[in-house]
Amino acid sequence: MRPPVTDEALTRRWHQVRQRLADADAAGILIGGGADLEYLTGYEAMPLERITAFVGRLSASEVLPTLIVPELEAARVRRRPSVYGVATWDDTTDPVSTIASALPQRGRVVVSDDLWALHVLGLMHQRPELDLVPASKAVGGLRSIKSQEERDALAAAGSLADKVAAQIQHRDLPLVGRTEAEVAAEVADRLIEAGHETVEFVIVASGPNSASPHHHPGPRAIERDEMVMFDFGGSFGGFCSDTTRCVYTGPVPQDVRDAYTVLTEAQEAAVQAAKPGRPLAEVDLAARRIIGAAGFGDYFIHRTGHGIGAEVHEHPYVTELNSEPVQIGHAFSIEPGIYLPDRWGMRLEDIVVIEADGARRCNNSNRSLVEV
Amino acid sequence: MRPPVTDEALTRRWHQVRQRLADADAAGILIGGGADLEYLTGYEAMPLERITAFVGRLSASEVLPTLIVPELEAARVRRRPSVYGVATWDDTTDPVSTIASALPQRGRVVVSDDLWALHVLGLMHQRPELDLVPASKAVGGLRSIKSQEERDALAAAGSLADKVAAQIQHRDLPLVGRTEAEVAAEVADRLIEAGHETVEFVIVASGPNSASPHHHPGPRAIERDEMVMFDFGGSFGGFCSDTTRCVYTGPVPQDVRDAYTVLTEAQEAAVQAAKPGRPLAEVDLAARRIIGAAGFGDYFIHRTGHGIGAEVHEHPYVTELNSEPVQIGHAFSIEPGIYLPDRWGMRLEDIVVIEADGARRCNNSNRSLVEV
Repeated sequence: MRPPVTDEALTRRWHQVRQRLADADAAGILIGGGADLEYLTGYEAMPLERITAFVGRLSASEVLPTLIVPELEAARVRRRPSVYGVATWDDTTDPVSTIASALPQRGRVVVSDDLWALHVLGLMHQRPELDLVPASKAVGGLRSIKSQEERDALAAAGSLADKVAAQIQHRDLPLVGRTEAEVAAEVADRLIEAGHETVEFVIVASGPNSASPHHHPGPRAIERDEMVMFDFGGSFGGFCSDTTRCVYTGPVPQDVRDAYTVLTEAQEAAVQAAKPGRPLAEVDLAARRIIGAAGFGDYFIHRTGHGIGAEVHEHPYVTELNSEPVQIGHAFSIEPGIYLPDRWGMRLEDIVVIEADGARRCNNSNRSLVEV
Repeated sequence: MRPPVTDEALTRRWHQVRQRLADADAAGILIGGGADLEYLTGYEAMPLERITAFVGRLSASEVLPTLIVPELEAARVRRRPSVYGVATWDDTTDPVSTIASALPQRGRVVVSDDLWALHVLGLMHQRPELDLVPASKAVGGLRSIKSQEERDALAAAGSLADKVAAQIQHRDLPLVGRTEAEVAAEVADRLIEAGHETVEFVIVASGPNSASPHHHPGPRAIERDEMVMFDFGGSFGGFCSDTTRCVYTGPVPQDVRDAYTVLTEAQEAAVQAAKPGRPLAEVDLAARRIIGAAGFGDYFIHRTGHGIGAEVHEHPYVTELNSEPVQIGHAFSIEPGIYLPDRWGMRLEDIVVIEADGARRCNNSNRSLVEV
C-alpha cells in the first residue's frame, strides 16, 4: 500500500493548478472524479453514477476548494480541513445544485474533459452565465508536469514491465501452439510477479492480427514463422508502465527485417527530438517523416504517443497537431508503428520522461525484433 | 465466450430505441461508448480517450445509424452492413467534426449521460443549433426493459452469487482474525469458482466499518461479536449479479436483532410494492416508511435500489423522486439499509425482475442475520 499523500503535497498541487487556471483567465474549476480528483484531494472516488466532484474558486478571498461527495460515501473521505472542505448530496437532491452553489457566480469555469454530459447540460441549464471550457483546451493536463519523484516512479514501473519483455524475448513464455488469450493471461500473471500492483492491459496480437493496433487477444493459436506483438502495462506505486515489443516465431523475412529497421530508426529519431522547448508535434513528425520516406506513411495510422502517469493515457498527446512545447517533467510514450492489413503489424514503444537535457527512457529491454 | 449478437437482434433493438426517441421528439441520438453502444452494435469499444460513438438520425429517409471509431481500432469492428455504417476518424482529425456530420441538421439530440464534456462542449460550439438532452432525462435508460431471455440471464447470474452467500452463511469462509481485504479476495475467487466470468466488486465491511455503505475492504481484522456486511457481484453471460447479506460473528444482541427485523420487513414491503404500473417512488417509500416508523429514518441514507443488467448500476433508479412506473421487464435491486455511525450497519439486497404479476427475486439465499 502507498502511504497517503500529505496535506502539504496536496496544498502545493492546488496552488500550482490555481496558478495555471489564473493564467488561463479561469474563475473556477470543476472536476467530476477520476485521477485529477485523486491528485488534488488524495481521495479515490468510486467510479459509479453518483458524482464525486472537486470544485475550486479563484477569487482572492477563496483558498479552500470543496470536495463534494455522495452522502453514503462520506464516511470514506479523510477529513483534511487545511486542504478542502467537504459537502455532501444525498439521493433526494440533485448534485448539480450542490455543485453550482460551490462555483463562482460567473466567468470561465474549467471542467474535466470526462465530466458527464448529464452534469454539463444540467449545470448549463442552472447557470447559463458560466462559460464552461474543457480542461485540455484551457490548461492542458493538470498532472502533465511530473516531479523528479514522479519521474523516478515511472522509471521504476517501466523496469518491471521490462522484466516481462525480457522473459518473452528469452523464450521463457512458450508461444507457438498457444492461443493469444492464454499467452495474454500468462503475461498478466508475470506483470504481477514482476512487482506490479495492478495489470492495466495486455495486448497479444499474432500473425495478421498484429496489423490491428488495439487487437483484443483471442482464440487464435500462435503459429510458426509469424509476428507476435506484445503491448502491456501495469501500475506500481500509483504510476503506470506501458511498453511494446514484437518477436518473430522463426527466421525474420528480409522485407519484415527492413521494415523493422525503419521502425527502429523512426523511434530513435522521435526520442532524440523530445527536447524541452521543441513542439510535441516535432516528436511525432520526426518518426512520421522516416516512416513516410520509406514508403510506409499510409500504414502508420496513429499518433506517436500519449502522456502517462497515474493513468495509462493522459496529457500530453504526441500528435502532429500538438504545438505545445515539450517540457521538463513531461512523461509520454514514443511508439511508432507500421501495419500492413492482413499481413503483419509492428510497433516499438518506450516511455520517456523529459529531463533538462532531453528524453530519458523508462524502458530498456532489447529493441530488436527477436527471433523466438 | 458469449455468441455474438445477431444482426436481427440489433435491428430489433434499434427499432425499439428509435420509437422511444420519436416519442420524445428527438431528431437524433449520440452515444459515446459504453454499454448502450454495445447494446445497439454488438461492439465493445475500448474505454480510452479516443471516442467511439454511435450516431443515429430519425428522419424518415434514414434507417441505418453510424458507428464512428478511431481508425486504429477499425480492424476490430465487425462489419454489419444491414445494421450500421462505419465511419472512422484518425489522430490528425477532430472526432467531433465526424460526429457532427452524422447528426441531424437541427432539433433535439439525445446524448448518453456519460458523454464527455470535451465532446459535448465541442459539439455545442460546432453545432449551436442542436438541442442536446441527456438520455436519462429524455427517454430514461435505453436498456431498462429486459426481454424474457435477459431476465432469465439475470436470474442465472443471481443464483451464482447466492452460492457464495450460502458459503459465507455456512461458515465455509473463515472470518474472525482475517482482514477484510483477505476475505474480500477470497470472495472474489469464490465468485469465479461459482461460475461468474468476471468479478465486478466486493465489499466486506466489519464492525463499525459496516456503517459506511460503500466501505472499501481494508486492513481491519474481523473480530468476534460484530457485524460483517458482504455486498458483491460478478457477471455471467453479459449480465450482472449483485447481492448483500450480513452475518454476525457471535450471538446477535437484541437491539441489532430488532433493527434487522425492521430491515427485513422493509425489504419485503418494497418487493411487494414493485408491481407493474406503480411508481418506482412507491417501491422506495414502501421500505422507507417502515424504517422511518421504527425510528431509523435518519440512518437509511441512500435510495432503495438501482437498475441492473449489462452494468451493475443502470436505469431505472428506485428513489423517492422517480415517478416513472414500474414496468414489465424492469430489473433492479431492492436494498434498504440502516447505518448507525461508529457502531454498525446492515443492508439486505436482492435483485428483482418484474413480471406481469410482480417482482420475481433473482437472489434467494437465507435472508436472516446468520450467526457465524
